[in-house]
Amino acid sequence: MKLKIKEIQFETYNQQNVVLNHLDAAKLNKKAGERIIIKNIHSEKLDEKHWIGIIEISHSDKIIAPGELGVFADTLKKMGNLETQKEVRVKPAEPPDSYRFIQKKVKGEKLKEEEINDIINDSVSGLLSRIELSSFITGVSIHGMSNREMISLTLAEKRSGEELNFGPNVFDKHSTGGVPGNKVSLIIVPIVAAAGLIIPKTSTRAITSPSGTADSMEVLAPVSFPSEKVKEIVGKINSCIIWGGALNFAPADNILIEVERPLHLDPWGLMIPSILAKKLSMGVKKIVLDLPVGKGTKFPTVDDGKKFALVFKQIAKRVGIEAECALTLAHQPIGHKIGPALEAKEALTLLRDYSAGPNSLIEKSTSLAGILLEMGGKAQKGEGHNLAKKILKSGKAYEKMKEIIEIQGGNPDILPKEIKLGPYSKEIHSLKSGFITDVDNGIINKIAKTLGCPFSKTSGLDINKKQGGKIEKGERLFTMYSDSEEKLERAEKIYNQTGGPIILGGMVIERL
Amino acid sequence: MKLKIKEIQFETYNQQNVVLNHLDAAKLNKKAGERIIIKNIHSEKLDEKHWIGIIEISHSDKIIAPGELGVFADTLKKMGNLETQKEVRVKPAEPPDSYRFIQKKVKGEKLKEEEINDIINDSVSGLLSRIELSSFITGVSIHGMSNREMISLTLAEKRSGEELNFGPNVFDKHSTGGVPGNKVSLIIVPIVAAAGLIIPKTSTRAITSPSGTADSMEVLAPVSFPSEKVKEIVGKINSCIIWGGALNFAPADNILIEVERPLHLDPWGLMIPSILAKKLSMGVKKIVLDLPVGKGTKFPTVDDGKKFALVFKQIAKRVGIEAECALTLAHQPIGHKIGPALEAKEALTLLRDYSAGPNSLIEKSTSLAGILLEMGGKAQKGEGHNLAKKILKSGKAYEKMKEIIEIQGGNPDILPKEIKLGPYSKEIHSLKSGFITDVDNGIINKIAKTLGCPFSKTSGLDINKKQGGKIEKGERLFTMYSDSEEKLERAEKIYNQTGGPIILGGMVIERL
Repeated sequence: MKLKIKEIQFETYNQQNVVLNHLDAAKLNKKAGERIIIKNIHSEKLDEKHWIGIIEISHSDKIIAPGELGVFADTLKKMGNLETQKEVRVKPAEPPDSYRFIQKKVKGEKLKEEEINDIINDSVSGLLSRIELSSFITGVSIHGMSNREMISLTLAEKRSGEELNFGPNVFDKHSTGGVPGNKVSLIIVPIVAAAGLIIPKTSTRAITSPSGTADSMEVLAPVSFPSEKVKEIVGKINSCIIWGGALNFAPADNILIEVERPLHLDPWGLMIPSILAKKLSMGVKKIVLDLPVGKGTKFPTVDDGKKFALVFKQIAKRVGIEAECALTLAHQPIGHKIGPALEAKEALTLLRDYSAGPNSLIEKSTSLAGILLEMGGKAQKGEGHNLAKKILKSGKAYEKMKEIIEIQGGNPDILPKEIKLGPYSKEIHSLKSGFITDVDNGIINKIAKTLGCPFSKTSGLDINKKQGGKIEKGERLFTMYSDSEEKLERAEKIYNQTGGPIILGGMVIERL
Repeated sequence: MKLKIKEIQFETYNQQNVVLNHLDAAKLNKKAGERIIIKNIHSEKLDEKHWIGIIEISHSDKIIAPGELGVFADTLKKMGNLETQKEVRVKPAEPPDSYRFIQKKVKGEKLKEEEINDIINDSVSGLLSRIELSSFITGVSIHGMSNREMISLTLAEKRSGEELNFGPNVFDKHSTGGVPGNKVSLIIVPIVAAAGLIIPKTSTRAITSPSGTADSMEVLAPVSFPSEKVKEIVGKINSCIIWGGALNFAPADNILIEVERPLHLDPWGLMIPSILAKKLSMGVKKIVLDLPVGKGTKFPTVDDGKKFALVFKQIAKRVGIEAECALTLAHQPIGHKIGPALEAKEALTLLRDYSAGPNSLIEKSTSLAGILLEMGGKAQKGEGHNLAKKILKSGKAYEKMKEIIEIQGGNPDILPKEIKLGPYSKEIHSLKSGFITDVDNGIINKIAKTLGCPFSKTSGLDINKKQGGKIEKGERLFTMYSDSEEKLERAEKIYNQTGGPIILGGMVIERL
């Protein structure tokens, strides 16, 4: 069938969608989601350059008339030599082999290395549609992935993008997330780098939390750099704290995540390759994995966390990464401040003055940094934690952080009080006295996001006291900051509806 | 967030997609596939009219700029009072409850009636995205559905559309497909109707085969009617042979099928409710189900077919339909002619002259019609088959068919030879002598579709002899018809590449 190309002013990204009028689709006996081969009008041979399109159907001639082939703006560019053609030849096409492999996984069979490579290659090229990837992710969620499959997937994802190399001793820290206020990377990286280890930290922006490390760091300095610039930075000061999303690392993983996220599915079989592929792309050789466990995290129980850690270490080893895992408490925020600017402020305050605390941030950061120091031979087994505290106390970590801020284009001399908050704020005071028996991370996240986190960097929550603390009637529970009065009002409504994140016990506790 | 509505000249059908610029999506902390609430700019209350949109993201300001909300042409119409607004207010939204129920199914849990109702309602309203439905279908494929779940799904699908009622004794025949040339409905319906039973036959167009009953019937008369007209036709002549797709029956089922088809998944848990919901919509109370078994059908072995029949009968009974199932041979085509016009011609020839055969068409049609005659009390148990043959032989079935053709707007006096074929045709002759040991349905389908079936009604294959027949060197194997010389050439290429559908054994057979 010959069709005239009509550009559609819309983008589809990773899917090679094309639009047929319903009458032409009927002639080809193809329905939405099925495929056609698109070829040069003059080429008759099958081996000549062709393009596979996944069909969308238009019932309106106004949009795509019979005889027209709708091609999306971004796809048209990718079509190369076909782009300049006014007319193309189309024929029905079958699904790619990679879809047969997805069907194998759905049936519960194990996939071979080549089969996983095929799925990954076709995801990147756009040959697999989102509903097909959804079926794959659902199949993996139900049947799981063997160690061998995860290894193949990790390597295939890594190969789908760019790779950096900083030599044989490159360290990193990663967290599986789920705790608000987890600004530990802003402390760990300068400690570890100050000890002389190479730690090129890539981090994410917030996915479900009020602030990711990249969001908080961006308050102090730019975080988006091309890979050439990253090489230069790490070459000079053996560290960085940047946004991984600006680099073309493991794009296949990003495509899977785009489908996993709306499905709210995050099976281990995809999560482990996802973490490791990105670390491999950054040339990481040794890693400490922070595994927050408990309500609201990916691991409801300590046992779940342990199981995951065991599998993670095995897969990591097989792809050339030495991993240590640390199960960490996640029942309340790390430190007191939640939101990009507030977290940057709390981290900077601690880096400048150890005595400023807070304890939970010191303990968690230095524990994890200590593990890396031991892995890097900077401390004997069991001595890393103390060494990390020493480096932090000494001001060397702060000096390193200033280097990082400066080389990334920020102001190294910025003082915590110069970090802008709000400008709108509201203090919430307690209506009764009592001991704090619980801090609800879920409500904290809800209020913080309502206040504008993470997009508004100056928004967030500052909590006065945490679990075990005593609160008097009328005492400040927390302060809310926002870039808009309206958001502040909406957040206060949520506070009133939920009772807020700070749960006070009655007097019973004192009478014991 | 306030956004200006911008219409996108593209359709999305059952999905309520809207497009945000990536910067606005970041502000809302939402990614593609997640949701927003869209409200009247003047309404502040949550209970006021609102609309849920599933997010697509534009990275190009040219397509959707910050501050704009892209709404697809067809969605804009459905948005009712929002349509006329230039500006709307949007807020982040969570997935609907129905998606939680899909997740339950993915986890292997059983769904309650209300939960299935929710999934079906949200599929129809467009609240569930295609990737979410893909996850549901994959989950059902892996975990199956309990009888109770299938009953709930059948009833929910039925309720999603229109329902007709022709009283307490309404008969039907359905086939699960997979055999080329299966034009039996064109014989069964007039036989059963001639005996005085009500049989309002809705049929499908070809999905994977060269011709569906609706495609073949359309050669003789129109098949698309609104439900009012269907009521009138059946009221007058107690039967019809129409295309079910023109009626608004069980639209929820169609939405699921739109995702099942590109996934190549057709689990029993969805297939049984799909068949039964459409039959209930047509007011059917008693049905014979034709279950072709063997290679190329939905049931590879007789055992698979038996298991399916058992479950089907149980579910049917629970939703108020008495079902009998007949496992049928599927190793070669029914009759000799494949393709819409050829099949109509073969059926009409038999209706006019019993002695014209072919035997396979007579046997299968009268066996299935006989079961319905027994179910309807027109014949004693074991006598239905003979009665059906008698009615067919007597010419009463032909008279009934003429009534059906006439009332549906066709020419009741059309002669088989007046049915147009081709106009291009080519005879294929055997290069050797031998007995036919096999007829390959897969190759027949491939050639027939290459010839233009089912869209081109005059295209198809006419097979000279079938399994067991003797072929002399130079004798005609089959004739190909097509509406285009190019297609005829391509079909011949496939014949040459595959060796064709007619497999001849050596002389060994004779020497035994």
